[in-house]
Amino acid sequence: MMAMSFDVESLFAERMRNVRPSLTRELLKNAGGPGFISFAGGLPNPKFFPTEALITATEAVLREDAASVLQYAVTEGYPPLREWIAARYKQRFGLDIPIEQILITSGSQQGLDLLGKVLLDPGDVVINERPGYQGAIHALSMYQPRFASVTLGDDGLNLDELGHTLRAHAGRAKFIIITPNYQNPTGITYSEARRRAIADMVRRHNVLLVEDDPYSELGFEGESGLPMRAYVEDRVVLLGSFSKIVAPGMRLGWLVAPPEIMQRVVIAKQGVDFHANNFAQRVLHRYLIANPISEHIARIRAGYASQARAMIAALECCLPPDIPFTRPQGGMFIWVTLPESADAMVILKEAVAQKVSFLPGMPFFTDGGGRRYMRLSYSQADEATIEEGISRLARVILQHLDAPATEQFGIRSAMA
Amino acid sequence: MMAMSFDVESLFAERMRNVRPSLTRELLKNAGGPGFISFAGGLPNPKFFPTEALITATEAVLREDAASVLQYAVTEGYPPLREWIAARYKQRFGLDIPIEQILITSGSQQGLDLLGKVLLDPGDVVINERPGYQGAIHALSMYQPRFASVTLGDDGLNLDELGHTLRAHAGRAKFIIITPNYQNPTGITYSEARRRAIADMVRRHNVLLVEDDPYSELGFEGESGLPMRAYVEDRVVLLGSFSKIVAPGMRLGWLVAPPEIMQRVVIAKQGVDFHANNFAQRVLHRYLIANPISEHIARIRAGYASQARAMIAALECCLPPDIPFTRPQGGMFIWVTLPESADAMVILKEAVAQKVSFLPGMPFFTDGGGRRYMRLSYSQADEATIEEGISRLARVILQHLDAPATEQFGIRSAMA
Repeated sequence: MMAMSFDVESLFAERMRNVRPSLTRELLKNAGGPGFISFAGGLPNPKFFPTEALITATEAVLREDAASVLQYAVTEGYPPLREWIAARYKQRFGLDIPIEQILITSGSQQGLDLLGKVLLDPGDVVINERPGYQGAIHALSMYQPRFASVTLGDDGLNLDELGHTLRAHAGRAKFIIITPNYQNPTGITYSEARRRAIADMVRRHNVLLVEDDPYSELGFEGESGLPMRAYVEDRVVLLGSFSKIVAPGMRLGWLVAPPEIMQRVVIAKQGVDFHANNFAQRVLHRYLIANPISEHIARIRAGYASQARAMIAALECCLPPDIPFTRPQGGMFIWVTLPESADAMVILKEAVAQKVSFLPGMPFFTDGGGRRYMRLSYSQADEATIEEGISRLARVILQHLDAPATEQFGIRSAMA
Repeated sequence: MMAMSFDVESLFAERMRNVRPSLTRELLKNAGGPGFISFAGGLPNPKFFPTEALITATEAVLREDAASVLQYAVTEGYPPLREWIAARYKQRFGLDIPIEQILITSGSQQGLDLLGKVLLDPGDVVINERPGYQGAIHALSMYQPRFASVTLGDDGLNLDELGHTLRAHAGRAKFIIITPNYQNPTGITYSEARRRAIADMVRRHNVLLVEDDPYSELGFEGESGLPMRAYVEDRVVLLGSFSKIVAPGMRLGWLVAPPEIMQRVVIAKQGVDFHANNFAQRVLHRYLIANPISEHIARIRAGYASQARAMIAALECCLPPDIPFTRPQGGMFIWVTLPESADAMVILKEAVAQKVSFLPGMPFFTDGGGRRYMRLSYSQADEATIEEGISRLARVILQHLDAPATEQFGIRSAMA
């Protein structure tokens, strides 16, 4: 018999049909090499990785309990690690969270995928921030929702717009997803009044609130605001991460959810990978209980605060005053708003040629907007490098604003 | 304003509506404690975990390269680990696999989830083995396919039935998923002729073949059969695992796919968890290159071969000859076929009371069948314990076959 011609394209699921490799990623493929300065990735600074303490922790748990450390484990995660997380919420905020409501995930990114899987049918509405975290947009997009983005201001979501959006999508909106602390990409923090108002609106509508909170420990001046769970316990899913306070290479985060939701999330997690890496969970837990974590986190906070100050000073110095940017109280990001005519994709291409990078705004918008914005991460570079990088970048920006993009670099049409 | 009553059930996605906690899992909650003998879980024997070598490997990679080991990493996985996998296929089978076609997954279970995500729309048809691996059924079920199960014989899938099924579902069947080596749950191995015939059928129809191959290194007498990729390279996705040859707690496996499929899988993986645990990947890679792996695997093979022989001898001794069971050439499982009237769920409940466990057949069937089957795992217990456990279990089975289940334990209706 003849072999049939193989039409591999027809085998893909509908959800994959419109997925294309990211243009930003393509541009950043040329980034790197000696002297290159990256403000693009949201990468923790490796100088804060607790290398020696992790070696000690690994040796301890493997010597004491290898038969369990290296074996399959329960889907919910290592109970003492979940207890540590609960104790930390208690210590920081006085919040009581039963460990049955805590699941260890393979990074908080996996929490987003699990929520998409458990909650979203195609066409369901997700209310998110505009701009909002691109990793959440990517993870949730796989479940084919419609995004209804609500403008993010300096204090949080615009409340009028949120109310209008909730009413417009009543019955189809499944959840609101926000990052109240040191948001990615803007660096802004929600005010207490805004948190309270959003909690009220969640209580008035049949929706969940997802609080994506990976940066919460990185406040420059003391503790972050109260978790949204303190306002609406039964309607909040809270995502946390060890990536920013210990190490992202360990891919460990957590998801806090009320019992009905947790039950489904555990079933979904079981199908996905049985459980988070048990070896890494055990090493991490041993590290956490054997070391002064609050002091470690205080060092990270102080380091990022100093780097943020250096970047703000450099931006104030090098950019004209009519280009506003955020002044974060914590976290890793500054958000720059360029004039309307600017095109951050064009700027990025030239910036990479000048050995400096950032993320353009577009991946943070679900409606094709965002060309005039830039996300700068100050977490990776030291203060002197930040100064040099911002100075390079400012030159590229000023040159771009002096001349229309199409004439200057001649690539706009090729990239559209 | 009044708070609306919170209807959490209405927030769940369609795919979660019919998901219920597993009855087997509930029954096994009472399993364990002193003297308990488990033939239920597919757990590797911890005596083969290379504890000291992993401590050494961890110390080495962290001392040398912590800034990279603990950082975010590329979605595809650590390139030298992918090279190691390619080299092993070359060494074992003479197969050339470019590393661009290899992705590191969070256990091979994640490979199943990613394939569901990339390939399946609701209502698509998955052709699987009857009985087939319950973890694959669980992972893929989340994407709401219809399963068309094809009877598994001693040499592999029934070819007439497979041909009929492919024709009946032409245009809607996305892939055939099989475990040709030491299958879970039956322990059977596909003959070379059957592999070749299935490859021919895949070539004649517009489908993919997914080869789920976690046990392939565990052959009792030399190498397993050739991977299906050797027969139909461009139409096969191959899933492999480090769980059975190193340690499942590290949650590392791999997925081999042709370029068009790999491109989509990488995009999906990025949304799910960015990349597999980098810390574990680096430790594992260092362990693999610094130790004589073939000798380590030879010890595991010899150990499981001896345990399998012990279980076969005990079954031959304790069960009547009209109860057939498989005699595996590798892997971890034996499959017992009880008389038609038997009910393995009822037997399990009594067995747990007698401090011995197994998995009943039902989770391996997608059509509600399987009550008369038992899966026994010999990987965890030593030879003497296997003898004692089979003797306990045989007593429960014989008692069950002597009396109608409903009268004997009085629980059938309660469990239906």
